[in-house]
This record gives sequence, C-alpha cells and structure tokens, in this order.
Amino acid sequence: MQAYLDNSATTRPCDAAIEAMARCMREGFYNPSSVYRPAVEAFRRVREARENLLKPIHGNNCDLIFTSGGTEGNNLAILGTVARMRGRQVVAVSAVEHPSVAAAFDQLRDMGHDVRVIGVGLDGQPDWAALERALDDGASLVSMMQVNNETGALLDAARLHRTVGGRALIHVDGVQGYLRVPFDMKYADLYTLSGHKLHGPKGIGGLVVKKGVKLAPRQVGGGQEGGLRSGTENTPGIAGLNAAALELTRSNVDVMMKKLKLIEGIRKAVPNVIVHGPAPEDAAPHIVNLGFPNVRGEVMLHALEAEGIYVSTGSACSSKKLKVSSVLTAMGIPPQQAEWAVRFSLSPRTTDEEIEYAADKIGSVYDLLVRFQRR
Amino acid sequence: MQAYLDNSATTRPCDAAIEAMARCMREGFYNPSSVYRPAVEAFRRVREARENLLKPIHGNNCDLIFTSGGTEGNNLAILGTVARMRGRQVVAVSAVEHPSVAAAFDQLRDMGHDVRVIGVGLDGQPDWAALERALDDGASLVSMMQVNNETGALLDAARLHRTVGGRALIHVDGVQGYLRVPFDMKYADLYTLSGHKLHGPKGIGGLVVKKGVKLAPRQVGGGQEGGLRSGTENTPGIAGLNAAALELTRSNVDVMMKKLKLIEGIRKAVPNVIVHGPAPEDAAPHIVNLGFPNVRGEVMLHALEAEGIYVSTGSACSSKKLKVSSVLTAMGIPPQQAEWAVRFSLSPRTTDEEIEYAADKIGSVYDLLVRFQRR
Repeated sequence: MQAYLDNSATTRPCDAAIEAMARCMREGFYNPSSVYRPAVEAFRRVREARENLLKPIHGNNCDLIFTSGGTEGNNLAILGTVARMRGRQVVAVSAVEHPSVAAAFDQLRDMGHDVRVIGVGLDGQPDWAALERALDDGASLVSMMQVNNETGALLDAARLHRTVGGRALIHVDGVQGYLRVPFDMKYADLYTLSGHKLHGPKGIGGLVVKKGVKLAPRQVGGGQEGGLRSGTENTPGIAGLNAAALELTRSNVDVMMKKLKLIEGIRKAVPNVIVHGPAPEDAAPHIVNLGFPNVRGEVMLHALEAEGIYVSTGSACSSKKLKVSSVLTAMGIPPQQAEWAVRFSLSPRTTDEEIEYAADKIGSVYDLLVRFQRR
Repeated sequence: MQAYLDNSATTRPCDAAIEAMARCMREGFYNPSSVYRPAVEAFRRVREARENLLKPIHGNNCDLIFTSGGTEGNNLAILGTVARMRGRQVVAVSAVEHPSVAAAFDQLRDMGHDVRVIGVGLDGQPDWAALERALDDGASLVSMMQVNNETGALLDAARLHRTVGGRALIHVDGVQGYLRVPFDMKYADLYTLSGHKLHGPKGIGGLVVKKGVKLAPRQVGGGQEGGLRSGTENTPGIAGLNAAALELTRSNVDVMMKKLKLIEGIRKAVPNVIVHGPAPEDAAPHIVNLGFPNVRGEVMLHALEAEGIYVSTGSACSSKKLKVSSVLTAMGIPPQQAEWAVRFSLSPRTTDEEIEYAADKIGSVYDLLVRFQRR
C-alpha cells in the first residue's frame, strides 16, 4: 500500500493529459508558426486551450502567455513588468512566497529597486498595515500568492485588491491555487499557473495578464505569444495542461473532507500534533502543515517513506537545501518547532484508502520515533 | 499521399519518445527535488539523460543545462555569459542567425554593447577577416550556428575555433545540427540543442556549457540545474528527448542520398531551379533551399500543400512575418530572387516514397504556376 501525499510538490499526470499529449505528438505535431493547414490547425488548438484555461478564473479581459512552468511565469510577471517601468520602483512582496517569486524580488533589489517585504502572521495573513505603508510610498507592484505552498494559507484577494485600490499592479502566484481554490481575475493584473501541480504535464505553465498591462519579454526570438515569449509553442504540453484542467474542472471531489479526515485520524494517534498556519478548515482544501513534537520533519519523512507514505518537509524546491522552513519562521513559528514540520498535500485524486492508510500508520511511526528521541 | 519536408520547422516525435514520456508520467512522475526514493530515482534518470546527450558531442568536460527549447538555450548562452562580464563588451554574431540568437544580440546592443555583425558569403561561410577584426578589437563572445536553418550551410567549427584562438567565448547554435551533423565540444564553449527538431518532444532543449564558463541564470527560484536554470525539471520532456536522441544515434540512414535524389528529381522537371547557398553535397545532409524562378515561394508552398507536400519559405519562426528571407539577402542573394525560395528539410525518417512523390509533383505544380505568372 502507498499513499502519495505530496501533491504540492508534483502530481501524477492524469490519463486524459497523457493521452492528449500523445495524440498531439502523433497527429498534430506541426509547428504552429508554419503556414500550411495542419500547422494552422495546431495554432488554433493552442488558442482554444488558452480560452478554455482562462474561463474558470473569469479571464475574459486577459491574455494567457504559455510558459515552461510556474517559475518562468513568476519571473516574467515580476521582472517583465518592472522592466517596463521607468526609474527606481518601490515593490512589495510577502515574506512567505515561493523561491521563484522571492528570487525575482532579490534581483530587483540587486538592480537598486526598493523591495518591501510584507510580514505574515501565524494565520498566514499579510500585515495589511505594512502593505498600506508600501503603497503610500508609491509601490507599483505587489506580489502575493493565492495559496501558500507550505501551509495552505489563503490570500484574501478581494481585500488585497481593495487595499491596493488601483495604485499598483497586483501579481498573484496561483501555482498552488488554480482550479483548486476559486479565483477571479478582477482581483489581479497577473496570475501564474503551472501544469504539473494539477495532474497535467511538467514543463508547461502560463502567465495570465490583464489586457493593457505592460510587459517586457524575457525570452526573445521568433515572436511567438504576441512577442512576449518567443520559442516554438509546446503544443503537447499545452494539450496536456488543457486536458488536465478540463478533467479537474469536472471533478467534484470534496478534498477538504479528505484532509479533515486525515487530520482527525492523526490527532487521534498524536493528540499533541500542531497545525502550522491557519485552522485547516480556513485554509486551502488540499494542504496542511503539521508539527510532530520532538521529531524532526526530515526524520518523520523518511520513516513514513519506509511505509510507502510520501510527504515533504516544505517546498520541494527548497527541500534539498534548507533545514528549517523560512516560510514557517516568517510566520512567527519558533525555529525549533518549525523543524518538526511535515507538509501533507492532497488532490481530488487522493483516495479514501490512501487517507485511511496514512492516518493509520502515522501514529505508530511517530510513537516509535519519539521513543528513539527520548533515549 | 503526403510528403512532410519541413523537418527543420519541427519533426514528428518518434514512438520511442512518446512512449518514454508516457512511461515517465505514469511511473516516474515524482519531483526530482523531493527527497524520498522514487524522487531520487527521477533525479538520477535526469542525470543519466544528461550524460547520454553529451556523449555524441564529446562533452565529457561539459555540463548540460536543460531548457524549455532552443530559444531559451540561445538566450541563456548569449545574455547569460555577457551578464557575467564587466563593462561594455565587443561581441560578434553572424548575419544569418536564427531570430533567437539575433534578438539576444539586439538586446545586447540596446544595453550598450558593441555588436559586430559578421557578413556571410553566397557559400554560407562567414567573412573570416571581419571576425578577425572583431577579435582584434577585443570581442569576448562569438556566436555562429552549426547548420544554417534556411540553407543548410555548415559552420567550419575547427576554423572558427582556430580563428578565435581562445580570445573569446564561442557559442554555437546546434539546433539544426545536433546528431545530424557531427560536432565536437572541443570547438565551442556553449552549444544549444532542441528536442523537437530531432523527433523528440517540443518544450525541451538544452544548453551545453564547458566547465569553467561563467554564466548568470536567467530563470531564478528553487536552484535547479546547479542554480543556472530554476524550475521543476521537465522529466517527461527530458525522457522523450533522451529516447529520441538514442533512436537517432542508432539510425544509419543516408539522408544526403535522399536529398540529392530529391534535387535531381526536381532538376529534371525544373532545369532552371536555383540552389540558394552552398552546393547541396557540401551542406548539411537534410536541408536544401531552392529558388523556382518567377514563382514566389509562398505561392509554391500553398500549391504544394494542396498536393500534401509540406515545405516552408524560410524559418518557421519568421514565416508569418517576413516576405523575403533576411538570411538569403544577407548572403547576397537579390531580394527578387530570394522571393522564390522554398526550403526542403528532411530527416532520417523521410521515406523514399515521400521523396519520389515530392520530386514527381513539384515539376507539374511549378509548370502550372509559371504559366499563371506569365498571363
């Protein structure tokens, strides 16, 4: 028996996505930039996917630029907009963003821009007063993620939009949120999504851009994607992403129910388990970060792996480098406690059997490890 | 009957590539940055692919950075190396490069660098004396493509390496050459390749970098690819590229024979057909650019399309924008003649039937169009 509970690191591509990709490669492999009919057809299918992907976030007033994934989308949103602004900018970013957002702001800081890092509370909510101050100082770009990848904390996008009040561009990293938590493009100017987090392929993602937002390309050449992202379109990737999105939109699974059941099962066996971040029912349905007192997350992860249960200690992107999550410590969790963190991430495809199996095993694994710890 | 003779625009992915991708997505979908065993296994497979792809170009002293394709690889090679140099640079590029190289040099020019565009003769060879002058003026980067995508002209990489004599970094765009024309990394510091030009998937490519070459990343975040290209690795794309490369390496088809047969067939029917660029037997085996006197390439293309024969008038990346190829005019071909250009591009998978069919049809199509033209 296995339980794959690391869906925020990546998901298993669904059959619909794999089949759409294979079909595209066998029948519709033509270069969308060529001018004969099967190539024009390939171009048309890209446009159809674009429209389909924009619909669920009410993106009728937006363009979708296909990228190689979330990292490229986040980099393009942040560095591409500031590249079109004149002079030194004030820009604001939360303290708990994904490395692909945080590193882009580091670059802006190196370029001489004034980067304001907005603190985040234990509930995962940004320090709205600090954001207000940055805006009063003329901030022109604000970036905050829709769903925190480590804690599942949800952005109050309506409040962000209200607070900004049209004074700055709003970028929302939707990599962990798109199609799993509703979003409306009326609250943002730029929104990043990624295929492999939603049972689609790796190597494909998108940046949603509200019409009128000025963006400088970061990848230049043949002028694809309206000149904003050159390079032959990844048509199989786009087909796979589109198929996965359609599948996910149709799915009606209550992921929150599954998550609460998992937490309930764990709590029965480990009553002193700690929830890092907002109350589970107030967070994204598919993510919860738990602290197992006196057992390091890394140790827990490998002990669970031996039982066929796959989890993570934080963002996969940082998992090989950091011992303690900077996201958790930024939220005010003491470093020692943050060391206990284990992230469980589900998906609509997580089965009841996986939940039961994991909930059942975790208690005994923890009991064993804690006893070791005490020796 | 169909004849797909536009393999330099893109190729039909081979079964081995499609199957390797599907297998990776079904069984090995894990995030290579995660730390449990199946993820470590995914990471190991990426490393294996890297080693396998470096072998045919004798890249034992090199790293391979996986990118989203040729455009990203070319951009990274050019903009990434110059970003690590201090002050205003002299840089040299041939006049017949792909838009993803030319546009990167345009950016360098906009940034204030001194860009020397090296002319190219009718035989497709660069003006070596002009390159020598740029080097004497302190050029620190030279970029020239291995196989010209429009004419099939071959770079004399050994001569380039000798001419540069260690004074500048050498970047070679190998997108049209990798595994189709031998290359040795002893002649270059950076070399770009792309999956979809060699019966692999779209959305994946690579930049080969000689150890010790200083490169600044252009995509920042989680620190994948040794910090030089962040973003979750496109493991299915890498698996597909690797499978396609293995397949192509094994194939022993004489593409040049097929090309010469095609040209011979066309010449029989259209004796005044013009070869644009080097003599076919001196060019890359899979590309030939022909001029059909008094018929615009675009007209020829669509007439051939009606017969199920797919060709292009130039680079697919520019095909929707330009009437006349800037590559051909840069080689000294008069604009009026350049308008007649049709590019035929083959692959080891091009069948004898396709060649015979195309050679057979082209004469009658041309005769019809020329008669129209004269009215």
